[in-house]
Amino acid sequence: MSVLLKKIKINIYSQFKRNLSNNQYKIRRALLYVPGDDPKKINKAYKLDVDCIALDCEDGVAANRKEQARNTIFEFLNNGKPKKSREFDWGVRINSVKSELCQNDLDVILTAQNLPDTISLPKVNDTEELKWFSSQLERFTALKTKISVILFIETAQGIMNLKEICTTAKKLSENRNFEPVALVFGGDDYLADIGARKTDQLTEVLYARQKLVMMAKAFQLQAIDVVYIQYKDLDGLKQQSIEGANMGYTGKQVIHPDQVPVVQEAFLPSEKQIKWAKDLIEAYHKYAASGKGAFNFNGIMVDSPTLKQAENLIKFVEVVGKDTNQ
Amino acid sequence: MSVLLKKIKINIYSQFKRNLSNNQYKIRRALLYVPGDDPKKINKAYKLDVDCIALDCEDGVAANRKEQARNTIFEFLNNGKPKKSREFDWGVRINSVKSELCQNDLDVILTAQNLPDTISLPKVNDTEELKWFSSQLERFTALKTKISVILFIETAQGIMNLKEICTTAKKLSENRNFEPVALVFGGDDYLADIGARKTDQLTEVLYARQKLVMMAKAFQLQAIDVVYIQYKDLDGLKQQSIEGANMGYTGKQVIHPDQVPVVQEAFLPSEKQIKWAKDLIEAYHKYAASGKGAFNFNGIMVDSPTLKQAENLIKFVEVVGKDTNQ
Amino acid sequence: MSVLLKKIKINIYSQFKRNLSNNQYKIRRALLYVPGDDPKKINKAYKLDVDCIALDCEDGVAANRKEQARNTIFEFLNNGKPKKSREFDWGVRINSVKSELCQNDLDVILTAQNLPDTISLPKVNDTEELKWFSSQLERFTALKTKISVILFIETAQGIMNLKEICTTAKKLSENRNFEPVALVFGGDDYLADIGARKTDQLTEVLYARQKLVMMAKAFQLQAIDVVYIQYKDLDGLKQQSIEGANMGYTGKQVIHPDQVPVVQEAFLPSEKQIKWAKDLIEAYHKYAASGKGAFNFNGIMVDSPTLKQAENLIKFVEVVGKDTNQ
Repeated sequence: MSVLLKKIKINIYSQFKRNLSNNQYKIRRALLYVPGDDPKKINKAYKLDVDCIALDCEDGVAANRKEQARNTIFEFLNNGKPKKSREFDWGVRINSVKSELCQNDLDVILTAQNLPDTISLPKVNDTEELKWFSSQLERFTALKTKISVILFIETAQGIMNLKEICTTAKKLSENRNFEPVALVFGGDDYLADIGARKTDQLTEVLYARQKLVMMAKAFQLQAIDVVYIQYKDLDGLKQQSIEGANMGYTGKQVIHPDQVPVVQEAFLPSEKQIKWAKDLIEAYHKYAASGKGAFNFNGIMVDSPTLKQAENLIKFVEVVGKDTNQ
Repeated sequence: MSVLLKKIKINIYSQFKRNLSNNQYKIRRALLYVPGDDPKKINKAYKLDVDCIALDCEDGVAANRKEQARNTIFEFLNNGKPKKSREFDWGVRINSVKSELCQNDLDVILTAQNLPDTISLPKVNDTEELKWFSSQLERFTALKTKISVILFIETAQGIMNLKEICTTAKKLSENRNFEPVALVFGGDDYLADIGARKTDQLTEVLYARQKLVMMAKAFQLQAIDVVYIQYKDLDGLKQQSIEGANMGYTGKQVIHPDQVPVVQEAFLPSEKQIKWAKDLIEAYHKYAASGKGAFNFNGIMVDSPTLKQAENLIKFVEVVGKDTNQ
Repeated sequence: MSVLLKKIKINIYSQFKRNLSNNQYKIRRALLYVPGDDPKKINKAYKLDVDCIALDCEDGVAANRKEQARNTIFEFLNNGKPKKSREFDWGVRINSVKSELCQNDLDVILTAQNLPDTISLPKVNDTEELKWFSSQLERFTALKTKISVILFIETAQGIMNLKEICTTAKKLSENRNFEPVALVFGGDDYLADIGARKTDQLTEVLYARQKLVMMAKAFQLQAIDVVYIQYKDLDGLKQQSIEGANMGYTGKQVIHPDQVPVVQEAFLPSEKQIKWAKDLIEAYHKYAASGKGAFNFNGIMVDSPTLKQAENLIKFVEVVGKDTNQ
């Protein structure tokens, strides 16, 4: 690993040392699920260098262990957000609205002494579910600041209704105590819902996977990609992470600690990409000063859109490492 | 072919021996068009082991033979549904609403002594066409039970308006005597409509092909894939069938008897897939009983979504072969 | 190059010698941007054999040269549309509605002594922008005939709102002095907007690229594909052009004169395709006369959809070369 990349990584740490409000940009490259009924795994996750942890009440917890999960998470919330060498997103994944476990989950989790930074709401199908969820949150007077909410889209109905779901989430959040911050593509649930058979390239869900990114960006939300369930195959994980990043995803769900560093690295721009972007921006400003619009840069014709791609990349690197510039 | 697969196939036969109502799940893996003006071909199709037959008034019939097709189909309907070694879907494909042949088709077909199980309605562009079609059906008092309707989506407008089309179809069917049961992707017509050039992988229609599956599943309809027109190339057919099945399609249109067995086999899960699913479900229940949610199964991390994929597969096999379990 | 292809090309020239009204079909295979502040480049473009020229106020012009571009274009418009050996589309690309440069652009361009054939409106996000644009056009009494408008879709919001944008454009055009004629997919801007990383195959924007074609065809608009910015790589350009044509695109944006002939050739059907289509149509009519609907043609089963694909191809060739038939 090069000096440049190390510096970026150190900067991620420094950035998060500051006490960020919910409104500030939070990196969510790896979103790690930890079974909520397993204190040992939670304690292990607390020690990891990971952007987001979701203490899980949902798919990672057996049906006969749901109450155990809720109560364990309640205790961990009461003990407070752990101090880590850098800031991270401390979240809880509750059960879906349709599961009929959701209300109980909220009753326990939102009466803890400390609230999580983020609630992950799985299997959102339509705006009715969102409205119900939003009205549930109203019951909790402890919610004085807006809690961040990650919406999971993992059914045919969810993909179909995605524009309405995002519109409603943004609208409800204006007067309510939550803020949608990201969309998650629940690829495996979606596959099951549409009766597809999974292939390595995930071609069979390309439509849904790219519709989700488009919609996330139209509503200025982060987009978090599918789980890679072959958790021992880190090469495959890396490749799928890069594919997701290429599509515009800003992060990826992970289900094992070993996946975290691979994913977090893949969602950083590579050194080569950073150099390309810096050189291009420099060249652009040199030419623009001399009054040239489009110009030749290493055999490509550069005008605004290409410049914007380069600027986005550098802006991301700067957000991740902005403390160093102060 | 293995014993297991043979058993499944035999079970398909047995299932259909029972007198299924329209509301029961019907397998529609191969949907075979037979030119309605060709009694010889119809008689040949009657002898085939095929899930669905559509006696065709539309694209398989020359413009100057439409009346001939109608009258021939009328006679075949009057003669009654043929007894076969297993139940099958006995349908008629009429001409599209815009063709202005549709009303005449219905006038003849729905006054036959026996009604077909299913009407295939091609080139649906918008909800107005559906409303017109639905009001036409009202004219026929013979329609005492709901007739199954397969909607064909094969134009840019059809793909654009797909959500509204499905919503309207479901809504109309509440008080009318038809029931939408499937969406067909008319890939070749769609290609012509958007001015695309066909390639082997059909990448050029991936958006439309996958939007259709998503929408079908959101409305609990079957999804029937494109025709493979190189009817002598059975290897290519098999490959395209598997691609469709991977995407979530439940069946495929066929235009030649030789295509039927290849397609019907491709839309069955493979033995390897069945074994994988059974083992996974068994392992899941063992672990769940001991209170574990997510667990390692042959190197993949299994939680609810993966379980659901396995259960879907087995449920399908069971529907196909459920008689053996009784 | 064969005699047949040469003949088609000559016919393109002849067709455009006639004084076409805006309502007649215009070929738009290559849409060439020329920096509006560079008289030398404009004069050079005037000499090219190119379907469309867009004198550019937008991305090809540096921020500090916008006024210079407007004024230069004003002069070129005053000098009148250049006489070329064939008709071409003489357009201006203004700045986007959100840029706040758009009103000034229109003030200058639409008060010139001669109006351009076409206005290119970039980065359309929603119907509000279209309504504002349409109301701006009302100010110009010089607009006695409908001016053609090309809408650029290059953001997540634009792709999300595409159906509403097209519906509104068509509706507004009924009573206003413009006519939407094409949609452009601004792939590089879209990539930047969704934070994607570009790959050679553009897989990461497949959803948006194909949604745009579908929508264009549903509204009977032309569809113009992404820029290939590696302007020295003509082989890569050719390949990407063919991919776009395969998807149903009718043309492609170009940013360098060398790209024009490659693109214009790629968006013509190949001789092999023309021969296939002619033979198929001939065979179809022979069989149809004898009352056959579907029939075997070189191993494919031909019915209406395949016929329509062949007819589309020949119709295009005829439009391009129709003078020869008179």
